[in-house]
Amino acid sequence: MKKNNKNIAVYPGTFDPITNGHLDVIERASKLFDEVIVGIAHNINKNPLFSKEERKELVLKVTGKYKNVKVEVFSGLLVNFAVKKKAKVIIRGLRAISDFEYEFQMSLTNRKLAPQVTTVFLMPNEKYTYLNSSLVRELARFNADIKSFVPLAVQKKLLLKFKEK
Amino acid sequence: MKKNNKNIAVYPGTFDPITNGHLDVIERASKLFDEVIVGIAHNINKNPLFSKEERKELVLKVTGKYKNVKVEVFSGLLVNFAVKKKAKVIIRGLRAISDFEYEFQMSLTNRKLAPQVTTVFLMPNEKYTYLNSSLVRELARFNADIKSFVPLAVQKKLLLKFKEK
Amino acid sequence: MKKNNKNIAVYPGTFDPITNGHLDVIERASKLFDEVIVGIAHNINKNPLFSKEERKELVLKVTGKYKNVKVEVFSGLLVNFAVKKKAKVIIRGLRAISDFEYEFQMSLTNRKLAPQVTTVFLMPNEKYTYLNSSLVRELARFNADIKSFVPLAVQKKLLLKFKEK
Amino acid sequence: MKKNNKNIAVYPGTFDPITNGHLDVIERASKLFDEVIVGIAHNINKNPLFSKEERKELVLKVTGKYKNVKVEVFSGLLVNFAVKKKAKVIIRGLRAISDFEYEFQMSLTNRKLAPQVTTVFLMPNEKYTYLNSSLVRELARFNADIKSFVPLAVQKKLLLKFKEK
Amino acid sequence: MKKNNKNIAVYPGTFDPITNGHLDVIERASKLFDEVIVGIAHNINKNPLFSKEERKELVLKVTGKYKNVKVEVFSGLLVNFAVKKKAKVIIRGLRAISDFEYEFQMSLTNRKLAPQVTTVFLMPNEKYTYLNSSLVRELARFNADIKSFVPLAVQKKLLLKFKEK
Amino acid sequence: MKKNNKNIAVYPGTFDPITNGHLDVIERASKLFDEVIVGIAHNINKNPLFSKEERKELVLKVTGKYKNVKVEVFSGLLVNFAVKKKAKVIIRGLRAISDFEYEFQMSLTNRKLAPQVTTVFLMPNEKYTYLNSSLVRELARFNADIKSFVPLAVQKKLLLKFKEK
Repeated sequence: MKKNNKNIAVYPGTFDPITNGHLDVIERASKLFDEVIVGIAHNINKNPLFSKEERKELVLKVTGKYKNVKVEVFSGLLVNFAVKKKAKVIIRGLRAISDFEYEFQMSLTNRKLAPQVTTVFLMPNEKYTYLNSSLVRELARFNADIKSFVPLAVQKKLLLKFKEK
Repeated sequence: MKKNNKNIAVYPGTFDPITNGHLDVIERASKLFDEVIVGIAHNINKNPLFSKEERKELVLKVTGKYKNVKVEVFSGLLVNFAVKKKAKVIIRGLRAISDFEYEFQMSLTNRKLAPQVTTVFLMPNEKYTYLNSSLVRELARFNADIKSFVPLAVQKKLLLKFKEK
Repeated sequence: MKKNNKNIAVYPGTFDPITNGHLDVIERASKLFDEVIVGIAHNINKNPLFSKEERKELVLKVTGKYKNVKVEVFSGLLVNFAVKKKAKVIIRGLRAISDFEYEFQMSLTNRKLAPQVTTVFLMPNEKYTYLNSSLVRELARFNADIKSFVPLAVQKKLLLKFKEK
Repeated sequence: MKKNNKNIAVYPGTFDPITNGHLDVIERASKLFDEVIVGIAHNINKNPLFSKEERKELVLKVTGKYKNVKVEVFSGLLVNFAVKKKAKVIIRGLRAISDFEYEFQMSLTNRKLAPQVTTVFLMPNEKYTYLNSSLVRELARFNADIKSFVPLAVQKKLLLKFKEK
Repeated sequence: MKKNNKNIAVYPGTFDPITNGHLDVIERASKLFDEVIVGIAHNINKNPLFSKEERKELVLKVTGKYKNVKVEVFSGLLVNFAVKKKAKVIIRGLRAISDFEYEFQMSLTNRKLAPQVTTVFLMPNEKYTYLNSSLVRELARFNADIKSFVPLAVQKKLLLKFKEK
Repeated sequence: MKKNNKNIAVYPGTFDPITNGHLDVIERASKLFDEVIVGIAHNINKNPLFSKEERKELVLKVTGKYKNVKVEVFSGLLVNFAVKKKAKVIIRGLRAISDFEYEFQMSLTNRKLAPQVTTVFLMPNEKYTYLNSSLVRELARFNADIKSFVPLAVQKKLLLKFKEK
């Protein structure tokens, strides 16, 4: 039976950068759980477009209106981060078949490593079914119009980033 | 932001009969939400092995230990049932690719019909990935051993049912 | 090389009833080919909600604005219908993975039976990815709001149909 | 309704090198549209086996018999290339499930960026379902017999290329 | 370690009727195992086009040239039939994604019921990827040319069958 | 018909490192074929965690109990290795949809290159459906408990490897 303590959920990702699809999931999650921690994955072997500080700043800016949403950077195994945060839930957006098997692998592995944490899948609006951060970066690189894919703050930051380059 | 009122979830299905895979989802859900209503779909155009009364009785028997789980029969559109029950959440088990597109169709349709209700997908243990009620019925029909697929009460009821026939 | 004669395309289906997803494909096709023949499949072994006359009438009504679109009922093999109509193209909407293998089977079979006819796949708007006629019938049966799924004329006809029943 | 101006189609790809599967699509397309422009994608971040000049030369050689087929190199977004060429159609070969989601993503994105351009999917002969350029390169590298996978001119060029190395 | 007794394999199916895709699998299997038993499933709840006697006769006729291939009709659970026949192997043709999950379900279930029997998947030639018995019946019903899909004996029998009707 | 000579099977892979899923396939295969050769692929363009000598040593250690299993390192095309070893069979584990198309591509290509070699697919226990070597490496890197994923000898070697680093 559901315990009385707070229902904390972690929503992990690279968020390089955050898109409208991510925001759609965050808004849904903020209505279902007492606290949602957006976990920005930092991996020293990867080379993201935005630094972990930039990614955190962008997520903070566009999720400011959701009072129970926090943002943190983590490294190492997701399930260890979730346990440290006393989260009972890991949230994943599930958009397309290609997500499916990777997500199942991670969900079942995490269940083995920390049985008390449950992975919960939410589906973003179908407008965002085929949207992901790498598409957004590709379009921004060629100066295409991305206003229907990301919040305004992200759009501006992308423009600046590709001017620098 | 999450409101203070009770977080009610509906878990719909035909449950003809309930399997260990269903139970796995119900147990997980009972830890995440304040109340879980198992909704047994009654469809006058279908001809289940067990009557709606039998299916309800079996679900009640095997979910009795979860104090925040209720069982109800419903007919008509699932989303109407969820709204009537003041549920914010519809729970679906997601096992395999073949579930995927049907579930997405229903989830997106329900979102259009009742935007305040969110469909949440849980993944049963991989032991139950390929388990479903029709497989159980088929095996029981030929008197195969199904004790790793369904609770004991269901196993007994299936034996009786096929003796009758 | 492209011959000088007219480029005729057949768009087959059951259209029980025509949806906004079908219309989206028809509009696209009407811009690509000289003539588009919507082929309403009549199968004496199936029992559609709408008679072949009703289905044709509805398709005619909602495609009237496309000057190069015609509507016909056919029975038997699609590829024979296409050949009889001198079509070089069969148009199919491709929405989701579950469509994929069936469509490939039919396309490759038709290529064997009539090599001069090419199957061309168009993708409806993502709004219609999970839309199909049987979902529309199901929703209408329970009096749900379907105005974002079908044209107004179809909505009205469905209302009447379920009142009769 | 179909306008009177020429129906131009772009068929984009890396063509590193062109295979019999590509040729099958090009031949089909040349019968459906007034002009087919094979667009060879040049991406400075990628390191193809053949230079863009070599790839263009090979495509030209093996498509010479189709009078309405042209070959051009492009860089940047495909949709911008299509618009510049006044193409109404982007042609994509659709072979297998793994192509599916990527193709849908690109098709829906391109539709947002240039609504007047329609992506049209053609299916190569089933002989070529599992054929792609990277398989051909891999087999040629180990000197396997590839004559059923690529035209003779490509086979020769591959032999030379791997002798150089 | 492999025991010295005979390596018997069962290849089950409805074979209504046997196709060139089935034959391709049978030929392959006959080279790998000491004995291959084609098991024709008889299900009193199904209504095949050909009776179990007709199906057996057709399979016998077209597999006569393979000396280690036998043909039998069975009813009930496949795994019981395999055990009764002392088979160590169940052979299944795996053609397309849509086969995949059903086959996995059956394979894992059979492994639970009879751990000593291993399901082995063979892939028919890509010519037969999209071929199945129901397509063949459908084409024959409309008198289409099916000579590349089934052996001559089956083609003749289908012609007769649809003349009767 | 099955010839009297030995039935040799090759089971190829990178085995970086060998997992319980691989072992499950090897055990099954050792019961079906006279000799099973585990073929460790050596590719000078790849940079595995374990050297080819380490990978061979680990496979030898954990397969020692199967008397008809041998272990060899190979480079170049798998099908050439199989032919050199006089194998009639290539064994592949088939776990998930994402394996499917790649496996079909390789199987059909190998059939073209060496028609006398048949690819046979075995399915590991569902416990191992989502298990692969890269997941094991990732978990070991972060010191997670992997004892249900790999044999003890592999677990120890992984611990040592990541201490070195």
